[in-house]
Amino acid sequence: MLTPTRLDTNSLYITELLNNIGVDVVAKVIVGDDRGELESCFSQALARADLVVFSGGLGPTEDDVTRETVADHLGLAMSEDPDIIDKLERRFAARGWKMPEVNRRQAMVPAGATVLDNPNGTAPGLWIETDGKGVALLPGPPRELRPMFERLVNERLQPRASGLRVLRRVLKIAGRGESRVEEVAQPIYARWREESPQIETTILAMPGPVELHLSTRGSDVAAMDAALDRAVDQMATALGSDIFTRDSRSIEEVVGELLRSRGWRIALAESCTGGLATSRLTDVAGSSDYVERAIVAYSNNAKIELLGVAPELLQAHGAVSEAVATAMATGARERANVEVGVGITGIAGPSGGTPEKPVGMVCIAVAAPNNGAVDAGYATHVRTMRFPGNREHVKAFSAFTALDMVRRVLIGAPVNPDWIKK
Amino acid sequence: MLTPTRLDTNSLYITELLNNIGVDVVAKVIVGDDRGELESCFSQALARADLVVFSGGLGPTEDDVTRETVADHLGLAMSEDPDIIDKLERRFAARGWKMPEVNRRQAMVPAGATVLDNPNGTAPGLWIETDGKGVALLPGPPRELRPMFERLVNERLQPRASGLRVLRRVLKIAGRGESRVEEVAQPIYARWREESPQIETTILAMPGPVELHLSTRGSDVAAMDAALDRAVDQMATALGSDIFTRDSRSIEEVVGELLRSRGWRIALAESCTGGLATSRLTDVAGSSDYVERAIVAYSNNAKIELLGVAPELLQAHGAVSEAVATAMATGARERANVEVGVGITGIAGPSGGTPEKPVGMVCIAVAAPNNGAVDAGYATHVRTMRFPGNREHVKAFSAFTALDMVRRVLIGAPVNPDWIKK
Repeated sequence: MLTPTRLDTNSLYITELLNNIGVDVVAKVIVGDDRGELESCFSQALARADLVVFSGGLGPTEDDVTRETVADHLGLAMSEDPDIIDKLERRFAARGWKMPEVNRRQAMVPAGATVLDNPNGTAPGLWIETDGKGVALLPGPPRELRPMFERLVNERLQPRASGLRVLRRVLKIAGRGESRVEEVAQPIYARWREESPQIETTILAMPGPVELHLSTRGSDVAAMDAALDRAVDQMATALGSDIFTRDSRSIEEVVGELLRSRGWRIALAESCTGGLATSRLTDVAGSSDYVERAIVAYSNNAKIELLGVAPELLQAHGAVSEAVATAMATGARERANVEVGVGITGIAGPSGGTPEKPVGMVCIAVAAPNNGAVDAGYATHVRTMRFPGNREHVKAFSAFTALDMVRRVLIGAPVNPDWIKK
Repeated sequence: MLTPTRLDTNSLYITELLNNIGVDVVAKVIVGDDRGELESCFSQALARADLVVFSGGLGPTEDDVTRETVADHLGLAMSEDPDIIDKLERRFAARGWKMPEVNRRQAMVPAGATVLDNPNGTAPGLWIETDGKGVALLPGPPRELRPMFERLVNERLQPRASGLRVLRRVLKIAGRGESRVEEVAQPIYARWREESPQIETTILAMPGPVELHLSTRGSDVAAMDAALDRAVDQMATALGSDIFTRDSRSIEEVVGELLRSRGWRIALAESCTGGLATSRLTDVAGSSDYVERAIVAYSNNAKIELLGVAPELLQAHGAVSEAVATAMATGARERANVEVGVGITGIAGPSGGTPEKPVGMVCIAVAAPNNGAVDAGYATHVRTMRFPGNREHVKAFSAFTALDMVRRVLIGAPVNPDWIKK
């Protein structure tokens, strides 16, 4: 886990289960198989937390030192557990092998520790209670760690949990950069500092959405819920239709539900996004109910043949223009015979930019029923954006913003994100 | 980064660059935006390491506390840097905005610190030398952190490093699961244990490729290079055309270069992947030279109208069938008038599976010039796969495998990956 190639996913799983029972994770530490480092981390963790969870380092080899380090630090003698030896021997025998001698180390148990059964591997886990604190030693492979940790949570941690709970709400915001969210949010959450239960705020920006996390901790769940509801309402009033979800849904889920509830279908015409917007939409299970088709019209030919974009339009305005985006959205909608059409054309970079049409400039058009009613004809909305970042970011921003524009058009909200080119 | 949803990727990048100049990473610590926790970690890190690198917490908002915490702990006064203010103001002005007052915090610099320019964002980095040790404060977003850290390594860390180097080679493998790579690789790398310089091996599996990492550490770079070359050759002989790159390229880059070198263009017809294969292909800069178009034919109608799939074929075999995949590939190729066509149709799940056509079953077809020559007519290659995992995994596996099939067809390699349905 200290190499450049290993992503730590166990800690996400552990965090989720702990948060669910109101346990806050205050720190995560990754160290090598080094007794000195490990012991120093363990001692610091014990000093500041009530629960310390190890994952990994329980294997049979000499570089697996977690068991010994923890026992030594707590001053617990170790002895071989005949039950574990028995299970290990049977496990190997089932494969027609004799247990290698090295595996004997996995049967060493510190005095007073509870052995956690591992049906999916050789390393049993350990649970130690010391000075009112809990220490869990879990194996590293996720398929061994997960069921073991789940049982530990249900049988031992949940009953000890303080009764304190952490409640969290996530608002996801489109069309504003991080600082323009902060500008609006800061005066609001500054007022919450004096209130009880106290609400913590975190702002997270990614290429596309900005997330506003509100959380509160305590035991009076009803009061906490009510406080969070009030807080969310205040933010919602301030940020209006820029908030696309209050319940952790992705933009593609939100758009999918808007389409589904209207019984409408969508067709997309993508150029610079290369299929990314449609791929996002189809990440949602059941999206085949409302995604009819998409055309990735990378060439001018494809725009003309498959979307009916007039060659004169391409000639007069260039492929990256509001006129062509509009023609793409309309062509996609009409040819697929669906209610909603999207056209995306832009310059993803790194090359292809000009002073007039720089890298990051993207035109997005949405064609949809006028005033939300199919019999009132169709209207087209088009905007030119200027997104920051490299090719990958421009693609991600463009796909996200196109889906957000569909959302805004469907709910009748103004289409005026931060990224619009002045 | 302490929530259940945020994967830490910055530390991998930082580790890689540090390893390259022979610097070992002894610990990684993740803490919240909490001054107490942060200060306690900082003080411990300073005690045991020569270099401490922070990422994140330099934003404009009140929960960004890294700058203040580090300055306080080192007893350094902070003052506003007029140059930073100037850059920030110009950055906002370029977008037609006034700098929000909150961004002023980003211009605070501890006494004696060097400001690290951030061309990709508002937060400048900081470099502080203290008691012969180095402390780097870097912004969290990868596209801001990476170029800044690269410069820091080249200009300040490399000259201070020990001279020991870590060299690494990465082989990327398609069409084999992790254990089928290990089966072939293990007898080879077992032999390396006795050799010097010693080569370490790591196998990493993801939804699609499997990576084989070979690394060695020492000071004799020529001998290390030669040893790695020999090792790579032995693996390449054993794994043959399943290796799609020896130099860290992605499958979409490899396919792009094969198309470009032949002057060929490609058109895709995607169903269950929803545009993901085309989005991957167009992640590569310059891909508009060879990606002509794609049709995301989610509905049967779209398959019939846009790809010329015969309704009788859909009726007789169902949309997920080798016959329909083949018709999609051929239709895409012919209608776009290009050399290579791809058809992907499958069941991404979670619903829609049947005992005969279960979730994860995907048919992939590639139509391309016979024997690599355009004048020899066209041939179609089709396979039915069975991929593991959830909707996201099936999409990722399918898009990856479709691109790998294009690669195999273009280089005349056998199309027989592990995932083929028996």
